Amino acid sequence: MVTFLADGHVTSPRGWRAGVAACGIKYANRDDLALLVSDYPATAAAVFTTNAVKAAPVRYDMALMAQGHDLRAVVINAGNANACTGSDGDAAAAAMAQAVEQALDLPPQSVFVMSTGTIGVPMPVEKIVRGIAVAASHLSQDHGPAAARAIMTTDTRPKYCAVAVTLPDGQVITIGGMAKGAGMIHPNMATMLAVVTTDATVPRAVLDQALRRALEVSFNSISIDGDTSTNDTLLVMANGASPAPPITDLDSPAGSAFYAGLVAVCQHLAHAIVRDGEGATRFVTITVRGAVNDAEAKVAAMTIARSPLVKTALFGADPNWGRVLCAIGYSGATVDPDRVVLSFGGMRVLENGLPLPFDEKAAHQLLDVPEITIDADLGLGDGQATVWTCDFSYDYVRINAEYRT
Amino acid sequence: MVTFLADGHVTSPRGWRAGVAACGIKYANRDDLALLVSDYPATAAAVFTTNAVKAAPVRYDMALMAQGHDLRAVVINAGNANACTGSDGDAAAAAMAQAVEQALDLPPQSVFVMSTGTIGVPMPVEKIVRGIAVAASHLSQDHGPAAARAIMTTDTRPKYCAVAVTLPDGQVITIGGMAKGAGMIHPNMATMLAVVTTDATVPRAVLDQALRRALEVSFNSISIDGDTSTNDTLLVMANGASPAPPITDLDSPAGSAFYAGLVAVCQHLAHAIVRDGEGATRFVTITVRGAVNDAEAKVAAMTIARSPLVKTALFGADPNWGRVLCAIGYSGATVDPDRVVLSFGGMRVLENGLPLPFDEKAAHQLLDVPEITIDADLGLGDGQATVWTCDFSYDYVRINAEYRT
Repeated sequence: MVTFLADGHVTSPRGWRAGVAACGIKYANRDDLALLVSDYPATAAAVFTTNAVKAAPVRYDMALMAQGHDLRAVVINAGNANACTGSDGDAAAAAMAQAVEQALDLPPQSVFVMSTGTIGVPMPVEKIVRGIAVAASHLSQDHGPAAARAIMTTDTRPKYCAVAVTLPDGQVITIGGMAKGAGMIHPNMATMLAVVTTDATVPRAVLDQALRRALEVSFNSISIDGDTSTNDTLLVMANGASPAPPITDLDSPAGSAFYAGLVAVCQHLAHAIVRDGEGATRFVTITVRGAVNDAEAKVAAMTIARSPLVKTALFGADPNWGRVLCAIGYSGATVDPDRVVLSFGGMRVLENGLPLPFDEKAAHQLLDVPEITIDADLGLGDGQATVWTCDFSYDYVRINAEYRT
Repeated sequence: MVTFLADGHVTSPRGWRAGVAACGIKYANRDDLALLVSDYPATAAAVFTTNAVKAAPVRYDMALMAQGHDLRAVVINAGNANACTGSDGDAAAAAMAQAVEQALDLPPQSVFVMSTGTIGVPMPVEKIVRGIAVAASHLSQDHGPAAARAIMTTDTRPKYCAVAVTLPDGQVITIGGMAKGAGMIHPNMATMLAVVTTDATVPRAVLDQALRRALEVSFNSISIDGDTSTNDTLLVMANGASPAPPITDLDSPAGSAFYAGLVAVCQHLAHAIVRDGEGATRFVTITVRGAVNDAEAKVAAMTIARSPLVKTALFGADPNWGRVLCAIGYSGATVDPDRVVLSFGGMRVLENGLPLPFDEKAAHQLLDVPEITIDADLGLGDGQATVWTCDFSYDYVRINAEYRT
C-alpha cells in the first residue's frame, strides 16, 4: 500500500539529511546550493540526458556510476549548469565532490554532483566550495523542502513529496524525492534534475531496473516543449536505514510494493514539473488506447503532447480534434483514420474518423479549466499509454524570449 | 540562366490560363476557388502529405496519378479541406473533378483536385460546382495572381512567382508557381498546397525525378511549427507549349538549367510560406556545415528549426547559442561538442564548444531584424544543409489559440 505523506520530502526516509546555502552563484538573497547526505552508504542508480552535449557534472557522474560504488551524498547547485565550460568545468565538478568529501569526511567517489542554470559561464568554484561548508554544517532531516527550493531555476514552486510503502510483511519503507525543471522538458531526460531517496534496502541491480521502469511511465511520459538538455539527471539512492528485508526481486510482492511507491514519487514529481511548465495554464492528460501495442500508443500520445498546434488550441480551450487527429496521423503509429475515436474532457468529438456535432460554447466552457483530458482510441489493438503535457501560452513565449539559458 | 520575371505567376508559362470564383464556402466577399487550365495535355508529377490521415482530394489525386494520364486542369478551393468527411468527401472530390471536365469538355481523369481550410465539415458541393462554372467562363493568362489569392486561408499574402530559364541552345522556357500555407508547415509535405507550371516539354519520369529532388531543398527544408497535415500537395505540370526540345535527362546541360529553374520557383514559394508563417516576425536561415554527411546536416538543421526554445529566443533577438547547441545535441546527428562553431547573424558566439565573449546589447541589435542567419559548423566532415524557419511570437499563440482548423 502506497500512502503520500503530508509534507513528505526528500529527507523523509530514515537516514537522510539535507543542508542548503546561499552561494551567490547567480541569484541574490536565496539559497542556491543543496547538499543531501545519507548516514549510511546507499546503493544508487541514475539515468542521464541523451543529449550529445553533456554538462561536466553529467560526465563526472557517468564515470562515477560506472565504478559502482555506494554513494553518501549529492551536491546540487542552481544558477550555473556547468555546461559548455570545457576542462575547467570538469575540474569544477570534481572540486564540488571533493569539497563535500572533505567537509563530511566521506570516502572518495561517494559524492554525486548536479548543476542547473545558465550554460557557458565559468563556475564560481570558490563560492560553491564555501557554500558546501555552510550546508555541511547544518544538515538536518527537516531541510528537505529547503533543498527543493535551493535547486529551483525558472521553477515557480519547489517540487517534492514522499510516500510510505507498507510491505506485505507489515513493515514500512519510505521513498522521498525532489525535482526541478520548467522549460526544456521532454522525455529522454530533458532539463530536469530529480533525486529520489529511500530507506529501503535495494541491491544496485534491482534499483537500476526499478528506476528504468519507473522512468518510462513518469519523467519519460511528459513533454513541455520537446527540447532536451545538457544536464538532465535522475538519481535514486537506497540507504537501507529501514529494518525491512532487502528488495531482491521487483516482481515479488515486496518488490511490487516498492516499485509502486517509486512510480508514485516519480509520477508526482513529473506531474509537478508539467504543472510548473513555463507559462503553463492547463495540465493535460493524454491517453491513447487501442493502438497496435503500448510503444505505438506512447509514440502517438507523445506526438499529440508535443504538437504546438494542439498546445495552443488547449490554451484557447478549443476542442480541436483536427489537430489531434493530424498529430496521430504523422506520429508514425499505425492508424486507420476511419476507426479513431476522440474525446476532450470526456466529451466525444470524433467517432470512426468523423466529427460529431457539439455545442461549441459548452465545449469551450468544459475545457476552460486547469486540468484537461484528451482520450484517443485507435480501435486497432490493446496498446495503451498515458502522457502529460501543458498548453502553450503567451507567457511561454514571453518567458523564453526573455530568459537566457 | 534563371531570371525571375517581374510579376511572374502561375500562368506566366505559355499555354496556361486561370479563372477564379467566389463560392461562399466559408469566406464572404472573396474568391475561394481557383481553376488552372492548360491548353495542352501536360505531364504531371505530385507529392502528397505523409500524414496517415489523408483528405479526400489527396486520396482522389493519388489514385489519379497512379494511372499516369496527362492532366489538363487543377481545381482548388479554400475554406474547406474536405478532410475527415468520409465517403461523402470522396464523392465531393470526384464531383469537383467531373464538374471541371464537363465545363471545359476535358477527357476523364484529366483534372487534379485540391482543397484547403477547415476539416471535418461537409463540402458544399453545389456551391463549388456553380463556382467552377463561373471560373471556367473567364479563363485568362492574366489571372495567375487572382488564383494565388483565391487559395489563401490564414495566409496574409498571396504567394506566386515565375522564372525564365534560358537553355544552352538559347531557347527560353518559363516556370511559374503558386502556393498557400501558413500554419502547420513542416517537411514531408505539411499543410501546404503548391502548383508549379511550365511550358517546357518534360517526360513524366524526368518531371517526377526533378520534383523529388527540388522538394528536398525547398518545401522539405522549411519548418514553421513542425506539424504536418491532411491535405498537403505539391504538383508540377509541364505542357510542352514552348518550342524548346524535351528535357530528357536532368543531368544534361538543358536538364540542369530546367532543374535550376524549378528549384528557384520551389524555394521562392517555400520561403514565401515561411515569411508568412503564423505570427512570424523573423525569417531565419539555418545552415549546418561540417556534418558527417548531408543527411545528418539536414537533421541537425531541421532540429534547430523546430525547437520552440530556439524560436522564442529568436523572437527575443537573443543569440542563445546554448539552445542551438542543445538542439544539435539531441538531433541524432553525430556531434563532438568540442568542435562545434556557432554564429548568429555572422557573429561568432561559440568556438570549439566554448562560448566567446560578446556585447549582449550589440548582439541584440544585430538580431533584432527581419532576416537572421544561424550558422553551425560541426567540424567533422563535408555534410551541409540549409533550412529556413521563422520565430515563435505572441501572435503565433494568439492565432492558433483562436483559429479553428
